[in-house]
Amino acid sequence: MTKPLILLTNDDGINALGIYALARATANLGEVVIVAPDSERSAAGHGITLSEPLRAEEVFKDGTFYGYAVNGTPADAVKVGVKALLPRAPDLVISGINLGPNTGINVIYSGTVSAATEAAIMGIDAIAVSLGTFVKPDYTGAARFASYLGGRVLSRAKGPRLLLNVNVPAIPERDIRGVKLTHQGTARFDETLEKRWDLRGRIYYWLGGEFRTGDEDESSDSKALAASCISVTPLHFDMTDYRLLSELKDWNFDGWGSR
Amino acid sequence: MTKPLILLTNDDGINALGIYALARATANLGEVVIVAPDSERSAAGHGITLSEPLRAEEVFKDGTFYGYAVNGTPADAVKVGVKALLPRAPDLVISGINLGPNTGINVIYSGTVSAATEAAIMGIDAIAVSLGTFVKPDYTGAARFASYLGGRVLSRAKGPRLLLNVNVPAIPERDIRGVKLTHQGTARFDETLEKRWDLRGRIYYWLGGEFRTGDEDESSDSKALAASCISVTPLHFDMTDYRLLSELKDWNFDGWGSR
Repeated sequence: MTKPLILLTNDDGINALGIYALARATANLGEVVIVAPDSERSAAGHGITLSEPLRAEEVFKDGTFYGYAVNGTPADAVKVGVKALLPRAPDLVISGINLGPNTGINVIYSGTVSAATEAAIMGIDAIAVSLGTFVKPDYTGAARFASYLGGRVLSRAKGPRLLLNVNVPAIPERDIRGVKLTHQGTARFDETLEKRWDLRGRIYYWLGGEFRTGDEDESSDSKALAASCISVTPLHFDMTDYRLLSELKDWNFDGWGSR
Repeated sequence: MTKPLILLTNDDGINALGIYALARATANLGEVVIVAPDSERSAAGHGITLSEPLRAEEVFKDGTFYGYAVNGTPADAVKVGVKALLPRAPDLVISGINLGPNTGINVIYSGTVSAATEAAIMGIDAIAVSLGTFVKPDYTGAARFASYLGGRVLSRAKGPRLLLNVNVPAIPERDIRGVKLTHQGTARFDETLEKRWDLRGRIYYWLGGEFRTGDEDESSDSKALAASCISVTPLHFDMTDYRLLSELKDWNFDGWGSR
């Protein structure tokens, strides 16, 4: 029987510690190939590169082949991996482990999630994994859960294509209180744009801010993290607001047609 | 009474003809300010710039102030416009007119849509407008519809915040057969990754492909365009797959917890 083929990627770049931890933890699941951006592409969103040539460079660590570094976005890396580098379509794509949570509104900015979404668009099961901290990351628990969940996805009976967004709290593994199925919450960055002057007296801005959990219900991704649980949110890529669609049904556009 | 304040942006860059047509057509709606990327950012997705300083340069045309050029993504342009350049939050953001349709799966790659989404996240009504062609664009009809719809949104009774994705067929205005409320369809790029060798013998890839409409239902955005209609799709930014969420409810994660 052929071993499962697993593509690993991320948005922190091929040299990030998160993808290294992921690669070690998932080695038992099958044949694992890393195809990741050559440098950090955080908050790249679902960008793809249409006006520049893409390249994939072989990266070696301690003389051993480690993976391919792509000069593009996380979504580019998945495209190049699947369409050009791998011998066949992978059975699973895992993106991460991201340094920092991808919950609430962050999901739509996330390069980590966009790589998994890109795989799902191609019909491949995919998991995005993020760790709920920006400082002193310990990827052990998140990597072990990614491997556990990857194994579950690979061994399950045939079902719908899965796109799962996983967030792991940054606490010791023994303190994790369980796994919750969640929905994308409404937590968002409370943004600031700081105005500064450069040495030539010209204005520039830094984008920053603090992530704030809103008064959302208990079944959201952020609330699960805050309750020391791992959150697993199934995603899709249909952005239609169906509720608004039915509310707008009585909008009359005749004023346009008759002009 | 204060005139409505309208921010215009796009992903084709401030010098694109599409935003110029939009500015002329919407001048009657209120005070119009252009804040757009300084160059083309097509397929930028919902990227934002966290690791580089952002700048806004005043652009003049024929000696008259035309707008602000931001060295970032469409979402960056909206953030800088709303948080730093405009005297108050705008009443409406219109993004476009994009050269090329943003229907089906394209919506998640679209910089045009991401700019409108960014405004909606800030609680501002927003419209993305795209023209269904890549060649010989005539923006007249699309610009006129954008102005009509913008007027409708500005003058409506208070209601839910609107995020509307508009696609206009690239046909003479008299041949447009109406306006349809649609959902995001499943049309997608049938992608190719073309392998080439540079002059030093190194491999590179070009991402390309053809946009194909799937066998989707008649109420999709692509089908409306194909039927010579303007499509209007209400969007949101909750990517949760609620159907899958309920299907997964019986997934048991005890295997993880007990380890």
